[in-house]
Amino acid sequence: MPHRRSAYFVSDRTGITAESLGNALLTQFDMLEFKRETIPFIDTADKAMAVAEQIRQRAQSDHFRPLVFVSIVNPFVREAIQVDDCAMVIDFFHAFVGQLENELEQKATLTVGKSHGIISEEKYDTRIEAVNFSLNHDDGVKLKDLAEADVILVGVSRSGKTPTCLYLALQYGIKAANYPLTPEDLDSPTLPKMLLPYRKKIFGLTIEPQRLHHIRNERKPDSRYASIDNCRREVNEAESLFRHHGVPFISTTHKSIEEIASTILHHTGISRRF
Amino acid sequence: MPHRRSAYFVSDRTGITAESLGNALLTQFDMLEFKRETIPFIDTADKAMAVAEQIRQRAQSDHFRPLVFVSIVNPFVREAIQVDDCAMVIDFFHAFVGQLENELEQKATLTVGKSHGIISEEKYDTRIEAVNFSLNHDDGVKLKDLAEADVILVGVSRSGKTPTCLYLALQYGIKAANYPLTPEDLDSPTLPKMLLPYRKKIFGLTIEPQRLHHIRNERKPDSRYASIDNCRREVNEAESLFRHHGVPFISTTHKSIEEIASTILHHTGISRRF
Repeated sequence: MPHRRSAYFVSDRTGITAESLGNALLTQFDMLEFKRETIPFIDTADKAMAVAEQIRQRAQSDHFRPLVFVSIVNPFVREAIQVDDCAMVIDFFHAFVGQLENELEQKATLTVGKSHGIISEEKYDTRIEAVNFSLNHDDGVKLKDLAEADVILVGVSRSGKTPTCLYLALQYGIKAANYPLTPEDLDSPTLPKMLLPYRKKIFGLTIEPQRLHHIRNERKPDSRYASIDNCRREVNEAESLFRHHGVPFISTTHKSIEEIASTILHHTGISRRF
Repeated sequence: MPHRRSAYFVSDRTGITAESLGNALLTQFDMLEFKRETIPFIDTADKAMAVAEQIRQRAQSDHFRPLVFVSIVNPFVREAIQVDDCAMVIDFFHAFVGQLENELEQKATLTVGKSHGIISEEKYDTRIEAVNFSLNHDDGVKLKDLAEADVILVGVSRSGKTPTCLYLALQYGIKAANYPLTPEDLDSPTLPKMLLPYRKKIFGLTIEPQRLHHIRNERKPDSRYASIDNCRREVNEAESLFRHHGVPFISTTHKSIEEIASTILHHTGISRRF
């Protein structure tokens, strides 16, 4: 019987924060396996007591005490999860709120849901506008889009531009345009003409030829487009172009979308729009 | 002179986790304003010392001690941010790692970047496949897509389906199809024919008519499509359809994309794919 620990992420909202910090901690114990479960929207004492009961039962059936990562603002709801006798509770929120109250010389308002709620319709609109921006021009970029963009991602087909543009829009409300380098662009020693007025906004993405070959082959098996020779040539030419014109660029090969997006923001100094 | 506190989010990776927990804490002090700054990729002692210097200078020019939210795994890098004499440091990672080591009777490996890095190409592919899935059929849904989808979001035009589908793909690797209810669908007492074989996978989105009117009016000002009467009628009919056929649905009006997505997962029991 495998001795996997149960790990719960319990939140009064979406559970995204509890999950991400909890997972960051758990991955530090890579010899162990965990049964992970996210329980969002626990915002009343009744719901909290039901969660406590669930954890209590699990504690009885498991060989080990469950780990419970909690992010619940309201202290009455939080206290209804009384499982300290049978589980290990890590409270991401209340562990720090007292310290902050002392430092800021102010009581926390202890109101739920300000961070992932719609704070204002205006901010929500900014985000959706950015999403629509990246969707509308994904098939082919127009001059108007380039003028409006906060940043223009440039790279060969399937180097990671599309998911990065979408992520920048959804996560940061940033309008990211997507300029695919065509074989003609790669043959030319100059930057694509369309990009010249906006060279300060462009950022390059590159990728290892072997990985590009794999990705393209999934789409168009055994095509010239996907061949390792062609991938190698396109990547070489794209990187030469970036270097020659001083375009900053990064490799997406061993990076998650989060890392690519966050690197671009860090490098360009663009900040979130909502 | 406004007395805004400086708040830094310092991370060895993207800073997303430090930012989200830090902001959740700061929003509890809504009488105060903060100058927020995220400093990602602090993964060497040299970089950490440079950050410490930056905070130290800010501490001198500000009226208040800066708040520093840190999420850095490597203890040597973490310790290089020695600013406890001039700032308030909240360490999201090391605050809990010791407790977990005791509970799990194992030392933390203290290796960086397992949580947001590409853990395996396979998982990365799952995510990108889901993104491409939601992009490919955004303009018009095909029967094949419905069969392949993990969940099918149904609602009137501009009720929030598109950003939610993209978010489900990017954040959870879930294939979410998008079925827009047309005026013809709304006139019919039955569910759209295409959806019948997949009714267990469908989930409805609705929205307040006033908000829908506002959103549509931005796109097509003064059109019949955007008129408040038409919005009211479409929303009423969509909600009747959902109720009549027992389709679960939620209103997107006062929810962020995170909350909509997380509610759908919670309700349908679908779990993340990567």
